[in-house]
Amino acid sequence: RSLSTVARKSLKIGLIPADGIGKEVIPAAKQAIIALGSDIPKPEFVDLIAGWECFTRTGVALPEETVEILRNECDCALFGSVSSPSRKVTGYSSPIVALRKKLDLYANIRPVVSVSPDVNQRPSIDLIVVRENTECLYVKEEILTIGEHGKEARATRLITERASRRIGQMAFELALARSRKHLTIIHKSNVLSVTDGLFRETVRGVPLLAGLNGKYDGVTIAEQLVDSAVYRLFREPEIFDVMVAPNLYGDIISDAAAALVGSLGLIPSINAGDDFVMGEPVHGSAPDIEGKGIANPLASIRSAALMLRHLGYSKGADKLDIAVDRVIREGRVLTPDLKGTSTTNEVLEAVLSKL
Amino acid sequence: RSLSTVARKSLKIGLIPADGIGKEVIPAAKQAIIALGSDIPKPEFVDLIAGWECFTRTGVALPEETVEILRNECDCALFGSVSSPSRKVTGYSSPIVALRKKLDLYANIRPVVSVSPDVNQRPSIDLIVVRENTECLYVKEEILTIGEHGKEARATRLITERASRRIGQMAFELALARSRKHLTIIHKSNVLSVTDGLFRETVRGVPLLAGLNGKYDGVTIAEQLVDSAVYRLFREPEIFDVMVAPNLYGDIISDAAAALVGSLGLIPSINAGDDFVMGEPVHGSAPDIEGKGIANPLASIRSAALMLRHLGYSKGADKLDIAVDRVIREGRVLTPDLKGTSTTNEVLEAVLSKL
Ligand SMILES: CC(C)[C@H](C(=O)O)[C@@H](O)C(=O)O
Ligand SMILES: CC(C)[C@H](C(=O)O)[C@@H](O)C(=O)O
Repeated sequence: RSLSTVARKSLKIGLIPADGIGKEVIPAAKQAIIALGSDIPKPEFVDLIAGWECFTRTGVALPEETVEILRNECDCALFGSVSSPSRKVTGYSSPIVALRKKLDLYANIRPVVSVSPDVNQRPSIDLIVVRENTECLYVKEEILTIGEHGKEARATRLITERASRRIGQMAFELALARSRKHLTIIHKSNVLSVTDGLFRETVRGVPLLAGLNGKYDGVTIAEQLVDSAVYRLFREPEIFDVMVAPNLYGDIISDAAAALVGSLGLIPSINAGDDFVMGEPVHGSAPDIEGKGIANPLASIRSAALMLRHLGYSKGADKLDIAVDRVIREGRVLTPDLKGTSTTNEVLEAVLSKL
Repeated sequence: RSLSTVARKSLKIGLIPADGIGKEVIPAAKQAIIALGSDIPKPEFVDLIAGWECFTRTGVALPEETVEILRNECDCALFGSVSSPSRKVTGYSSPIVALRKKLDLYANIRPVVSVSPDVNQRPSIDLIVVRENTECLYVKEEILTIGEHGKEARATRLITERASRRIGQMAFELALARSRKHLTIIHKSNVLSVTDGLFRETVRGVPLLAGLNGKYDGVTIAEQLVDSAVYRLFREPEIFDVMVAPNLYGDIISDAAAALVGSLGLIPSINAGDDFVMGEPVHGSAPDIEGKGIANPLASIRSAALMLRHLGYSKGADKLDIAVDRVIREGRVLTPDLKGTSTTNEVLEAVLSKL
């Protein structure tokens, strides 16, 4: 499902590096996009702020202006990574979670594909995690009360038919486009029979929606409880093709899948809605290596490719993906997370040289 | 922390095989306990029912009688595994979740230790997951409403200071008894700042409780976000020693850790409260192999050992553990989950022969 491709003269891309290595990898992705030249409409970049550092400087983690510019002026965006305070800080709240909701980017799509050759000799992985991106525990409705035995905190986990249906449909579309056409629904309805029961039944009901006329007949459907899904991801990852999950399970499962393919530094994602798409590397802000110039830019470059593909520019997307794959396969210019000794810039240059 | 060992003349053990392979592995654990002879007080077994099959037969998944007999007559219990209906069934609700709450078995303790030699050549694992067992999303307060866009389901996630403190204290005790004395707190307070914030702060506050007088000074404390914890479990499991987690994260993390050591069929657990303990293999009811006589009884035998150790019978517990370890290390008599060809009974006999 790509966004409607009204012929664009230029592509306005919001850049929100945010914190930590986000500030090193997003500029690299920008260079890679520029290098695509005429394969995509002329890119125009808008630098935007958000994050923990932004909060400590301005008192706001996600300035209203950032949201407004993304919403009203940009075609798409790239987001880096956010640091979290090590203690609860009043007024601070994750800007990426807020952005996903404010722009209604309801699908977090995370393809996890093995690099070849796999240094760990693990079975080859090729799956997509399709994570619901707007609700579940991420609605962040939490309250604190004082009970008989001290503090009591409660959070609401929201699962709606509407959100489950649209993420389900996105997952069926993605499954249909793949060779195995296999969809696994992740839930924990043996405990959460109402919320996860609704998620499961709604996703299962997608093929029966009016107007689809057997469109998804070729897609096979399976289910896994989230605990068992993590277990099986480690033991027999080959059973998975497309996995669709409520928000928090999707968060955990995509990290589990990432662990199988070598490094979080390779895993791209997009946050996609019906009229906006934002690329985002799955890795965090990595304070331990911040500022050293050795962050792996490949997840961000791949996120740019995913974003471009979602916008309908598959030629540009393919070029980026092929260049990244070649750099990985050659194995000469890699950052330390992939047991290499190269810098962010050297890896970027290697990618650019293959475009 | 073991339960007070008033000298017992006999040990009354409730047996709840429940569903699927539970009915094959719990009898094996019973035989192993009997074979301990005078190393433990004379065991007396009480057969009790619960589970999905029980529900289909009697309309109740956890008969009141089962709870009452456990509470009033038994010193401890062994629980097998439960099957879940493949669709939501009115009136059915997981009996194991209910039992944990009704008997206030607030700590689910799951040691995960590699078998040696590890067929997968993975780094050797030796950790304990300490899972809070009574709250989080497992309070099962769920409601369904009809909103503007269709059904909306909400579940409550409850985290209390009291439950976080007692599970925290259990985790510190376990960490203190180990050579590495390292405790990792698992949470997701970058999103759930109130609920997981309370969990994190309360566990961190345990060493400062009145009367402890620096007891836990030797324990080092770390933290991991749950997604990152799963990632690092795969990538660098050696960083973990004792992990303490709210209920659902603990559920997922213990399956992740189990995947690292070869088979869920090896992982034991106890559900422990201040005055009752119930052993339980971590694996499920495995409908695919039910009735074939090839279920791995080792997790159940190890659960019996953990239960006995918790009751203060470490001599009996050691014997069982050593016998199980020898059977695994010899590698001749193993069930198919461990790439062997032996039956449940053959593995049981092998264990008995080493006692
Ligand atoms: C930073 C955090 C709020 C975020 C999430 O939980 O969604 C991250 O883990 C992710 O996966 O994008
Ligand atoms: C069967 C299920 C309710 C249970 C749980 O989620 O606690 C199981 O997965 C476990 O880990 O004991």
